[in-house]
Amino acid sequence: MSSSLGKLFTVTSFGESHGKCVGVVIDGCPAGLPLTVADIQKDVEQRRAGASVASTSRKEKDEAEILSGVAAGFTTGAPLCLLIMNEDVDDSDYEKIRSKLRPAHADFTAAVKYGGFSDWRGGGRFSGRMTATFVMAGAVARKLLSAIGVEILAHTVAIGSVSAKPMTYKSIKQKALKDPLYCADAAASQKMAELIAAVKKEGDSLGGIIEGIALNVPVGLGEPIFDTLDGDLAKALLAIPAVKGVEFGAGFAAARKKGSENNDPFIIKDGKIVTATNHAGGILGGISSGMPVVVRVAVKPTASIALEQATVDIKKMKETTIKVGGRHDACIVPRAVPVVEAMMALTLADFAMRAGIIPRVLK
Amino acid sequence: MSSSLGKLFTVTSFGESHGKCVGVVIDGCPAGLPLTVADIQKDVEQRRAGASVASTSRKEKDEAEILSGVAAGFTTGAPLCLLIMNEDVDDSDYEKIRSKLRPAHADFTAAVKYGGFSDWRGGGRFSGRMTATFVMAGAVARKLLSAIGVEILAHTVAIGSVSAKPMTYKSIKQKALKDPLYCADAAASQKMAELIAAVKKEGDSLGGIIEGIALNVPVGLGEPIFDTLDGDLAKALLAIPAVKGVEFGAGFAAARKKGSENNDPFIIKDGKIVTATNHAGGILGGISSGMPVVVRVAVKPTASIALEQATVDIKKMKETTIKVGGRHDACIVPRAVPVVEAMMALTLADFAMRAGIIPRVLK
Amino acid sequence: MSSSLGKLFTVTSFGESHGKCVGVVIDGCPAGLPLTVADIQKDVEQRRAGASVASTSRKEKDEAEILSGVAAGFTTGAPLCLLIMNEDVDDSDYEKIRSKLRPAHADFTAAVKYGGFSDWRGGGRFSGRMTATFVMAGAVARKLLSAIGVEILAHTVAIGSVSAKPMTYKSIKQKALKDPLYCADAAASQKMAELIAAVKKEGDSLGGIIEGIALNVPVGLGEPIFDTLDGDLAKALLAIPAVKGVEFGAGFAAARKKGSENNDPFIIKDGKIVTATNHAGGILGGISSGMPVVVRVAVKPTASIALEQATVDIKKMKETTIKVGGRHDACIVPRAVPVVEAMMALTLADFAMRAGIIPRVLK
Amino acid sequence: MSSSLGKLFTVTSFGESHGKCVGVVIDGCPAGLPLTVADIQKDVEQRRAGASVASTSRKEKDEAEILSGVAAGFTTGAPLCLLIMNEDVDDSDYEKIRSKLRPAHADFTAAVKYGGFSDWRGGGRFSGRMTATFVMAGAVARKLLSAIGVEILAHTVAIGSVSAKPMTYKSIKQKALKDPLYCADAAASQKMAELIAAVKKEGDSLGGIIEGIALNVPVGLGEPIFDTLDGDLAKALLAIPAVKGVEFGAGFAAARKKGSENNDPFIIKDGKIVTATNHAGGILGGISSGMPVVVRVAVKPTASIALEQATVDIKKMKETTIKVGGRHDACIVPRAVPVVEAMMALTLADFAMRAGIIPRVLK
Repeated sequence: MSSSLGKLFTVTSFGESHGKCVGVVIDGCPAGLPLTVADIQKDVEQRRAGASVASTSRKEKDEAEILSGVAAGFTTGAPLCLLIMNEDVDDSDYEKIRSKLRPAHADFTAAVKYGGFSDWRGGGRFSGRMTATFVMAGAVARKLLSAIGVEILAHTVAIGSVSAKPMTYKSIKQKALKDPLYCADAAASQKMAELIAAVKKEGDSLGGIIEGIALNVPVGLGEPIFDTLDGDLAKALLAIPAVKGVEFGAGFAAARKKGSENNDPFIIKDGKIVTATNHAGGILGGISSGMPVVVRVAVKPTASIALEQATVDIKKMKETTIKVGGRHDACIVPRAVPVVEAMMALTLADFAMRAGIIPRVLK
Repeated sequence: MSSSLGKLFTVTSFGESHGKCVGVVIDGCPAGLPLTVADIQKDVEQRRAGASVASTSRKEKDEAEILSGVAAGFTTGAPLCLLIMNEDVDDSDYEKIRSKLRPAHADFTAAVKYGGFSDWRGGGRFSGRMTATFVMAGAVARKLLSAIGVEILAHTVAIGSVSAKPMTYKSIKQKALKDPLYCADAAASQKMAELIAAVKKEGDSLGGIIEGIALNVPVGLGEPIFDTLDGDLAKALLAIPAVKGVEFGAGFAAARKKGSENNDPFIIKDGKIVTATNHAGGILGGISSGMPVVVRVAVKPTASIALEQATVDIKKMKETTIKVGGRHDACIVPRAVPVVEAMMALTLADFAMRAGIIPRVLK
Repeated sequence: MSSSLGKLFTVTSFGESHGKCVGVVIDGCPAGLPLTVADIQKDVEQRRAGASVASTSRKEKDEAEILSGVAAGFTTGAPLCLLIMNEDVDDSDYEKIRSKLRPAHADFTAAVKYGGFSDWRGGGRFSGRMTATFVMAGAVARKLLSAIGVEILAHTVAIGSVSAKPMTYKSIKQKALKDPLYCADAAASQKMAELIAAVKKEGDSLGGIIEGIALNVPVGLGEPIFDTLDGDLAKALLAIPAVKGVEFGAGFAAARKKGSENNDPFIIKDGKIVTATNHAGGILGGISSGMPVVVRVAVKPTASIALEQATVDIKKMKETTIKVGGRHDACIVPRAVPVVEAMMALTLADFAMRAGIIPRVLK
Repeated sequence: MSSSLGKLFTVTSFGESHGKCVGVVIDGCPAGLPLTVADIQKDVEQRRAGASVASTSRKEKDEAEILSGVAAGFTTGAPLCLLIMNEDVDDSDYEKIRSKLRPAHADFTAAVKYGGFSDWRGGGRFSGRMTATFVMAGAVARKLLSAIGVEILAHTVAIGSVSAKPMTYKSIKQKALKDPLYCADAAASQKMAELIAAVKKEGDSLGGIIEGIALNVPVGLGEPIFDTLDGDLAKALLAIPAVKGVEFGAGFAAARKKGSENNDPFIIKDGKIVTATNHAGGILGGISSGMPVVVRVAVKPTASIALEQATVDIKKMKETTIKVGGRHDACIVPRAVPVVEAMMALTLADFAMRAGIIPRVLK
């Protein structure tokens, strides 16, 4: 396991889906940031709400706690430990399939890597539940970033075959958060919801595409050659289970264009150098350009489906079949939207500290 | 700058496009690996050859040197320093545009981030030439990986609008390396070459898509939650200038599929657990599954084009136009193919050491 | 703050003296280590007991909890979170001196570094109480090391002007743990206790010297040039508040000797290469030699004393005096003995993993 | 090997005593620092001069080169590669003792750790010659620190049984650098020189003690809990071959004192909070206090002596004797004085960057 992310703003995740708790330690958070449990709970709720249409979510309350690092309402410069105790832990559905490998899950790779000792209950460390720890840490990172004006939003741009139409950042900001699927295009959202309902009935599942946008990012975040802004964003986003691809700006479409089409001309606007277009997704040479940072991630369909699938019983070393029971989301895309925001926030906060833009003490 | 990559097999890059040299230090390479300059030179040549059709490459010889870490033909356990002295350094084309920002280059972001002190000559640290240091280090990583049977190959799957047809790994291995564009589909390669020639005539450029494949990767490489195999591969691949997207296995296409279509069923083959399909691209839960690791990267069209483009003179803070002179590749995709292999090798070697699969001393 | 230690066996500390808890996350612990709360509690108790003679310790029970990383009695490969909730938190003594800087404490440096936001209650992050987190993590490291036969012991060799006489490792092992001051020389221990009692009566305090010994350390731990075994041991030991010096083997005495006196001749014993003497303290070139690793640390006298001292009121920026109230140890040396063991265990476990001697999965 | 030091100002060492070169890459140096070869050569010369009385030094010129990271006389923000090519490489003395382990050297531990592949010629990576790379990097760090007013000096305080008398920082600054043994006490220096001459005649060697002092260090450098200023200074200093102990301020003497004697009272001087005494050596709670940072290191006597010593032939696994030929310093203490300065500079520069006191771009 390597459970830490970030160089100056460092996040260490711990806990398991069906263990006592899930939690996170943030080391390197500047002193002087006003922080309450409510700041963190708000983002945790947003992640849970993301499940309303698309999933049968866990019933537990998910109450965030701050165990350390805050005194008199401000961060102290000491590490923050943020925790959610697990309540709604029912292993009954999992016991019977312990030795049957769930396709598209980490059961097989974890069993081999950890010699059969890894916590298989509810997916253990590989459960989507671990993203609650990302969201808690992301809430702190977002507060930090807001101190330098950076704003982060993510929205659903596709679920299965249904795509949202392109919209302005302003529209996305106004509409996405209010939509049950975090989709800014209401008509598309309606179709997505219908598709999810239909597929759920079949016992099947859907994936989709999420777009993350960071506005007002100052020029200069990113540490080339290797710790590029795009590289570290991609790494952080691929920590979200089910993400199978990441692209910036024009992304894969850029591969099909000519240089004259894809290059973003520099212009002067309001006395500042900007680009007329933003095919680069706000990143040039691994460094933020001041334009919106735009990233899209491909989320694969939920691995757990009720349909019968071919698999192997690893104890008996025999081929068999499996129907994955328990509570599962037919589509985890909306649930992952706040997680995309969290991973962007964690990465940008770390780079803003590395660039010296966020000071060691806030005043 | 953050010029190091890897945790146990750590690569530190230095040098500039038009400085004295480009080089790399590898720290953590096990002792006892037989290594000669020829091992490294071979990969350096492959990278240069990648330019034959698509580019007007630098004329210099690119002679790799081993400055340290090898004695009596074997690595000693001490850091390797690998170097290429720059010879063909002609700044004349660059002097005149120093203050004019080249669109889609790092001129603007580097100027802001490094306060005007960064080496702008030939792109400095942001030049594609830095990938020669990746290839040198990658050659060492490939030798290490070959000790545990891992084989890495990359090939061109698209240039501009032309795509290669899907082929078996066996065909790719046999054909891609011999093709001038590293494309295994000869008919597609022919069309790609024609397209490049046409676009070059226009003074324009093309991008494309490269697929990297790692065969015989043992189960268990990757360190979740955060140092996932896919996350670190993506980060390494995004260090290649011009890469704007990365996807694994089915990638973005997975987002459009149902779970029943995308899940790879487990089967037993030759007494081993494998998957019947490989939509996961050989990675489950951030850990290698034993199936081929398959990744595709989107390469944007070459930023430097001869056509006139709108831009800004950063010294005069005035809008102007630019035609980028000097030697430039109309399409750098083939040149990037060996670099994709190198980045995969560096990442896999690091993880194989972290998993304890490559020992500290080879015998 | 930088609250992590170790590269492959990584410990992250959190919590404060008078906050909700003190805790630690261990990332990188191999799967398959049998581990119970009792294993950790045993070392926590030893640390508390170290205070019996020398101090007025906190009354709380110090009950260790395992929050994550263990399932069915074995480590899972996932991060361990170990926690002690604080109970006996009484801030009354501290409130009145908040603005008066306690000499030889971190009050001043913390106030400046963290802009007045650091948690000053009970010393916050700078309290000796944080060493309970080191001891919890050290207990896990010791269990790991015992799997490869490494044994760690520490003992008191001096308190104030009283020194213990030199003794064999066998005697130290038999006697030190049973002595109330962890001193293997019973006569010296008696004098030390008397000295502590006398100094305590005066309202003053004492320091001392602790020796740590690691037996059966395999040859080859340590990663020169920079991550030397001695360098990382020294760094870990200096994380113990009050430690002001570290020496290995002959240490400062070696500076006064001739080469012919200090060099340890190699001999063959029981078919193995060892040294006839051990002035090197078991470390040659930063790498363990197979001889006992011997380190001594200088512990300064407890900073908190009841006597009146000159100081500054940082709020009023005025010179004043202070008598530090609350519960304080007249001598923390015995309390620090198990902490020295813990820091040695953490460092050696990390290096044993880096050397590939402790595998990723224990069987 | 782990050949890197520092988190934001990161130094990676490479090369061998009798290989092609010794060198160092500095990653993270801010852009805009004026830097020439002469800046580096000056410190390299000081290290060589340190040998004048005490040693038979290598005859080579030790010409530093800057291979990268500087353009137009200023650092660019890109990694600096600094190199000294080896010239005076004569392996003849070493060939005959290859299999005979030199007592107090790393021959044995390196042979075991690197499976017989490590470069044994001239000590390879374990040679004192590697400290030339520390000194080159230290020269850059010192220039950086001088931008914030920090001044670093080291001096010889003891050689063998001869100790220098205590002196003011002003006297040390004026006199130590001019003394052939870097000792500020001329009378003691004379006796030290006589002692060295006598011991050299016997074919034996001497150790000693070096004191390092950093003046004008701002309050707030150091990153507790673990990356304390003292901890990281100790680690850096223990990378110097032959250093066996490190102490800060009163150091080991503090262990024998009472709290009322050792505590430094706070006072106000020139409107600033300082301490009346400096037993703490300028460090409180792992953080610089603004007082001079004072550290002493114990240097063991040179391991290579001409006298016959008992040892083992590792190939024949037989006890034998050895007389170590070749050029050797009877006392390396003066040579190590500039290296102590370098290691202090590297550590302080890294912490000054981590504290945000040295900006990313100098203007």
